Amino acid sequence: MPIPPDAFFLDHAAGLPLQVQLRRQIIAAVTAGRFRAGEKLPSTRALARHLGVARVTVAQAFAELVSTDYLASRDRSGHYISDSIERRLEAEPPAPDTPRFDWDSQIEGRFVRAQRTDRERDWRGFAYPFVYGQADPALVDHAAWRDCAMRALGRREFDSLTGDLYDADDPELVDHIARQILPRRGISAGRDEILLTLGAQNALWLVAQVLLRPGASCAVEDPSYPGQREILLASRARILPVPVDARGLPPDAIPPGVAAVFTTASHQCPTNSTMPLARRKELLARAQAQGFAVVEDDYEFEMSFAGAPSPALKAIDRAGAVIYIGSFSKSVFPGVRLGYVVADPRVIAEARALRGMVLRHPPGHMQRTLAHFLSLGHYDAQANRMRRAYARRREVMLAAIAREGLRLASPEATGGSSFWLATPEGVDSSALATRLKARGVLIEGGAAFFAQPARGRGFFRLAYSSISAERIPEGIRRIAEALREQGQDALPPAPEG
Amino acid sequence: MPIPPDAFFLDHAAGLPLQVQLRRQIIAAVTAGRFRAGEKLPSTRALARHLGVARVTVAQAFAELVSTDYLASRDRSGHYISDSIERRLEAEPPAPDTPRFDWDSQIEGRFVRAQRTDRERDWRGFAYPFVYGQADPALVDHAAWRDCAMRALGRREFDSLTGDLYDADDPELVDHIARQILPRRGISAGRDEILLTLGAQNALWLVAQVLLRPGASCAVEDPSYPGQREILLASRARILPVPVDARGLPPDAIPPGVAAVFTTASHQCPTNSTMPLARRKELLARAQAQGFAVVEDDYEFEMSFAGAPSPALKAIDRAGAVIYIGSFSKSVFPGVRLGYVVADPRVIAEARALRGMVLRHPPGHMQRTLAHFLSLGHYDAQANRMRRAYARRREVMLAAIAREGLRLASPEATGGSSFWLATPEGVDSSALATRLKARGVLIEGGAAFFAQPARGRGFFRLAYSSISAERIPEGIRRIAEALREQGQDALPPAPEG
Repeated sequence: MPIPPDAFFLDHAAGLPLQVQLRRQIIAAVTAGRFRAGEKLPSTRALARHLGVARVTVAQAFAELVSTDYLASRDRSGHYISDSIERRLEAEPPAPDTPRFDWDSQIEGRFVRAQRTDRERDWRGFAYPFVYGQADPALVDHAAWRDCAMRALGRREFDSLTGDLYDADDPELVDHIARQILPRRGISAGRDEILLTLGAQNALWLVAQVLLRPGASCAVEDPSYPGQREILLASRARILPVPVDARGLPPDAIPPGVAAVFTTASHQCPTNSTMPLARRKELLARAQAQGFAVVEDDYEFEMSFAGAPSPALKAIDRAGAVIYIGSFSKSVFPGVRLGYVVADPRVIAEARALRGMVLRHPPGHMQRTLAHFLSLGHYDAQANRMRRAYARRREVMLAAIAREGLRLASPEATGGSSFWLATPEGVDSSALATRLKARGVLIEGGAAFFAQPARGRGFFRLAYSSISAERIPEGIRRIAEALREQGQDALPPAPEG
Repeated sequence: MPIPPDAFFLDHAAGLPLQVQLRRQIIAAVTAGRFRAGEKLPSTRALARHLGVARVTVAQAFAELVSTDYLASRDRSGHYISDSIERRLEAEPPAPDTPRFDWDSQIEGRFVRAQRTDRERDWRGFAYPFVYGQADPALVDHAAWRDCAMRALGRREFDSLTGDLYDADDPELVDHIARQILPRRGISAGRDEILLTLGAQNALWLVAQVLLRPGASCAVEDPSYPGQREILLASRARILPVPVDARGLPPDAIPPGVAAVFTTASHQCPTNSTMPLARRKELLARAQAQGFAVVEDDYEFEMSFAGAPSPALKAIDRAGAVIYIGSFSKSVFPGVRLGYVVADPRVIAEARALRGMVLRHPPGHMQRTLAHFLSLGHYDAQANRMRRAYARRREVMLAAIAREGLRLASPEATGGSSFWLATPEGVDSSALATRLKARGVLIEGGAAFFAQPARGRGFFRLAYSSISAERIPEGIRRIAEALREQGQDALPPAPEG
């Protein structure tokens, strides 16, 4: 029996080409079983009239669907739903009396419990998003990335796009990291000392599994990156938090017997302080003497405003005790999901074997696209653009913060894409964050960064990587306003408009 | 001091546009420190003459490098290496007397030891590659994928391309899997019952971590997928192998007290046998009675030649005890690195939290591109094309196998992209594989598939997913030839040419 034209409709506002919409609609109807094999479609003329589109639009859609086996065309008599389509198999609906499998007794739920829940997925819906680590359409060179992705989709790149690389990485990307990026951090490394990962989070996770045997203990900066604590808690290692000061991690405070020390030496997360050279050398000397590995998360090094950034810890690591972690999430965009580890070949070999077991390898297409983005200079251009924009936003932030009388927790810190602030006495930053959400302002409470969440109540992080300079002053004003209400005049009175 | 034209050269055979080559060369020289800030470049005229290219080519390259901050252009006086380039920081070379960090005492090396080493990365260099699970340029619709990737790079898809999705998946891809793919397997699932993974390997790994607490035991088919054994061994669970027969896993042979059973019911790996409905129902009844979860790896279901494939175990799972794993590696290409898990919302929530900790999420661009590939019908077209090609190759394989007198280990098996063969008495398939490599033939020895590798010596796998039909007969002939030499006439004499 023929399918009537009324069975079709188009959403002229949908933004998709009408021809594409029509194809999608027919495919959806076939796979959902609404259109059955052998059923006849309306003529292109009748359907075009009904939909109010050109007849060629319908003809194109039909031709495409014939070539993809959804439709069959019989000379003169028109188009039919193809017989070669596998019909939908109806699932047996669970009988009402079927007992459900007892999952509660099967699943520990420890991963869900360890999960961070304080981040707003719909941050774009907020007028004043002081959120950290998201891409800013104004700073990402979308066109250049698109161009590089096109190159990576070319015929000659078929193998890198489609192949199972087993445990290998894209040699072109590895070479560009070794030649273009690591030298700027003072690091020289060979291919067997570099491993590509699915972002820095994945790099941290792999390194933690390789270093921490069950029952091992490790030292971490306090406060530190919440994603790192998540990983270490799940690894069931003993975590020994070491409070940081204005110069980062104090080496003499590292407890004896740790297998590894996790640090953000160049740019402490979240305080943004930088570890001086003397401390770095002491840290490495202790690593050698006490026999612990040093894991250096060198996130955001591209965002140093004071000229060239200080060399990485890894650059002065003569003994090879440092495992270096880099990421492209900040300087390209987080959706690229690519990072890397630089370490002793034995560490890399073990992490590579683990990566192969857990996920094989990052998609070849993303690797090759990034290789082009680096080789054509787009990476540097974008990092420069971001650095300039962040520097400007930072000035606006500092002025507004001073004007509204907010308190910086680490005033001497430079660079990066965020500030670390202290709340007035007795003001809980979690409550502050909740209150501000209702006023279109997103901030990060400090709790997630501390080993003892309660210690974080007095701090919060304000990132300026995703908020425009124009919106910053009003955002800061609203934060100060909320603080005054909550802190009972803990802040000086609002400045004269 | 000016840089002489002789410092530049182009490889006219490199395949890259000359303008791009020139840009790459200048960027490489700058980042390597060979060209220093402030140094003057040759005039476009002089350099074009030296390189033997049009002057506009050099001018374009320079203009691009100015826009990306590598070069500065001073009116009338030409182009200079930009001052804004961060100069290469020299790493302190390790003093010869520096003791190296003692990694050997730090690293267990268990992941390297568990690693599979029998796969040939350069399989494309072999004339007769009976390798499994690699993409065939003749069957992958590269142009269609490219078109879908272009759509996924459009302005309106900026967020899905660049954003950190935290623990979320691309809703468009999830919907297409739920509406287009699962119904064909008889499965209906909601969004909270579906998790996207970085391929089936990643799905298996996540599920194993969620199900197997330390010390738990699980039942696995023997032989089975080597990547799965790797995962279970590393999880430190007790692995109880259950020998399969011509109808797959015998439910009554499952030992008591297991937390989970891993099965490839529709298409046993590597024997390709199919579990009959009666056994499936018994397996599910035991799961409910004994309280174990069932993990169903439904790889390759698209490659069923006998009309529509039988519904999945999950389709008749009324209690919700089955965790279903699907992959796009076979039907799209392995480089896409995308798979999925369908299970009870509690299982999905836990696996999602773990995935977020280990790698955040698969790249949004790959997810959105695949969503377009599905919605536009390319997925079905490609699966149909593969099915037809595999069916044809299968016929050629069967004829050659019969002609040369090789022995199928499971003759009744249908579908898939490989055969499981038995060697003549006393012939070791590992030695056979090594011997054949020297003759341009790649096969998979059986050892990697068995809990006791020695039991695999009598078997080997021949895949026809990456070898053309034309090459199959000669490849099979060489295998038979090597078997005769090794097996001392264990095979009938070679047929008359």
